[in-house]
Amino acid sequence: MKKEKATIHDIARKLNITASTVSRALKDHPRISAETKKAVQKTAQKLNYQPNHIAAALRNGKSKIIGIIVPTADRSFFSSVVRGIEEIANGSQYNVMICQTYDNYEKEVATVEALLNARVDGVIASHGKETQNFDHFLKVKERGIPLILFDRSNDELEVSSVVIDDFLGAYKATEHLIQQGCRRIAHFTNTRKISIFKERLRGYREALLDNNLSYDETLVIESNLQLEDGRNSTEQLLTLRERPDGIFSASALGIVGALQVLKENNIAVPDQVALVGFSNETYTSFTDPSLSTVEQHSMRIGNAAAEIFLEEVNADQKKFIPQKIVLKPELIIRQSSLRKK
Amino acid sequence: MKKEKATIHDIARKLNITASTVSRALKDHPRISAETKKAVQKTAQKLNYQPNHIAAALRNGKSKIIGIIVPTADRSFFSSVVRGIEEIANGSQYNVMICQTYDNYEKEVATVEALLNARVDGVIASHGKETQNFDHFLKVKERGIPLILFDRSNDELEVSSVVIDDFLGAYKATEHLIQQGCRRIAHFTNTRKISIFKERLRGYREALLDNNLSYDETLVIESNLQLEDGRNSTEQLLTLRERPDGIFSASALGIVGALQVLKENNIAVPDQVALVGFSNETYTSFTDPSLSTVEQHSMRIGNAAAEIFLEEVNADQKKFIPQKIVLKPELIIRQSSLRKK
Repeated sequence: MKKEKATIHDIARKLNITASTVSRALKDHPRISAETKKAVQKTAQKLNYQPNHIAAALRNGKSKIIGIIVPTADRSFFSSVVRGIEEIANGSQYNVMICQTYDNYEKEVATVEALLNARVDGVIASHGKETQNFDHFLKVKERGIPLILFDRSNDELEVSSVVIDDFLGAYKATEHLIQQGCRRIAHFTNTRKISIFKERLRGYREALLDNNLSYDETLVIESNLQLEDGRNSTEQLLTLRERPDGIFSASALGIVGALQVLKENNIAVPDQVALVGFSNETYTSFTDPSLSTVEQHSMRIGNAAAEIFLEEVNADQKKFIPQKIVLKPELIIRQSSLRKK
Repeated sequence: MKKEKATIHDIARKLNITASTVSRALKDHPRISAETKKAVQKTAQKLNYQPNHIAAALRNGKSKIIGIIVPTADRSFFSSVVRGIEEIANGSQYNVMICQTYDNYEKEVATVEALLNARVDGVIASHGKETQNFDHFLKVKERGIPLILFDRSNDELEVSSVVIDDFLGAYKATEHLIQQGCRRIAHFTNTRKISIFKERLRGYREALLDNNLSYDETLVIESNLQLEDGRNSTEQLLTLRERPDGIFSASALGIVGALQVLKENNIAVPDQVALVGFSNETYTSFTDPSLSTVEQHSMRIGNAAAEIFLEEVNADQKKFIPQKIVLKPELIIRQSSLRKK
């Protein structure tokens, strides 16, 4: 049989004092004598009194809500980060609300506004591709609400962030293709204004140079990295007189598009063209051949972001020092890049 | 050059009256003369004055937030529904916040509580697999906030809902397999307590009976319908003396698992075993062969749910009549079930 939960009224009755005295005693109020505080604590323990944190938080003006801003929640990367955040947040009775910006700047600004109106206790965000003005995020900071950025971050905001080493991920992917015998490796990238894509391009380039391969701009194709973009970029590569023998895409969907076009043209993967993508989306292991990719440890990113939030929300604002956590990515080698020697 | 937005202060200055008079005139306040109202409206038009609806809504105690509750946001089905909701909601200056329950009942209850604390103007929800007590949803209704259920709904709550005809979707899928020559069709289902799965099973069964095929319980396998479940169920089917020549799964991941196991056992798809899944997840077209599936028109479900919300939120509560919208699903035939004749 489940016991009824003890309330402050039970403690009050037991000690023959008022509930408000009990409440103040539990909060260590200066007007309550040390003697009474001791008696209340002892009785609370005896009755196994559990304070209702959520109700208390609401009375203190806390909503117990963390707002999460992502470009889109349906990519495995972002949804795993959210899962990672919830794993930690739920343990501390925080609820999580997710807002999608679809990489639209105006929507991102409106979303920050809406979250502040919903009185969230913190914001964990990955900004959109278009975002160059960060005033809306500054507003969160000015309200004294913890703001943590992940994946796509901005150092100038001077807030905490959790990112992966994109340079390293790209370097490992490219180096692996070279080790498999590729000598002309193409790269699918997005706008170079966003740091994660700039870093992946840099990793690709450095790996080539470190292995005495030349960096050829005609093999670097800029696009939105969606499925159609991957298809178009691959068709473009197939028109080159000297075709590539490997492709490293800065996205997961881009490399699916590449695989489709290569198969349609009866070009053997990985033997004629080896493929590696970025981000371990569910479907990358469903294709035939399955796709090699860079695992971003998205659950860990979410865990770390939520841990920083808890640390910051419980700390003295003035004493909290923003931190940047950089996680090491991992290369997952599947059939699309593993050549039989 | 962009013109500065006109404010009520500009109108006030122009007419030499106070801003508060302008504000009240615009709101058709009874204490303001018809003459003044006319003058204000004329000047507002001339200056191209755009009222700030969001600020006004907040003053009126509206948050302009719709809370969405889904088991998980990373399935194409749910994320497309959300997209459909946002398409309509954004046009009316509503922001959308998504909460995931991971099919956990306690989390669902806490989520409803959190959304009410965030003062959302409406809730659009698909309840979890475990949910059998609906009191938390009743609370939304009692607060006079529009509640719309989709996909997984509950008629007893007497709120609006948007669903697809799961029976019809399953019937079409099974009938198609029969037309392709299948005579022993297996079915992967989930717990029969949830109406969508019960309906899909019923559609499968009716299609068999209507085509003079017998319904065989040993071919109906209950599981959580995840990837591993699909694999295990298929392995179980392969141990039967009389193996099936077709599989219809009530989920998308289940049929991916089936395809993997069949390929590993060198069983030809669709010639030896034809496959059809449910829900048009992105990856279903990435496999080889690509997977036939039932399209649930998820964007339309979202559109419809948001349209009902807008209708209800703008209607006189007492006059609004809950409505149930049932959409017809569509069978998408891909390589996994299309036999060459």
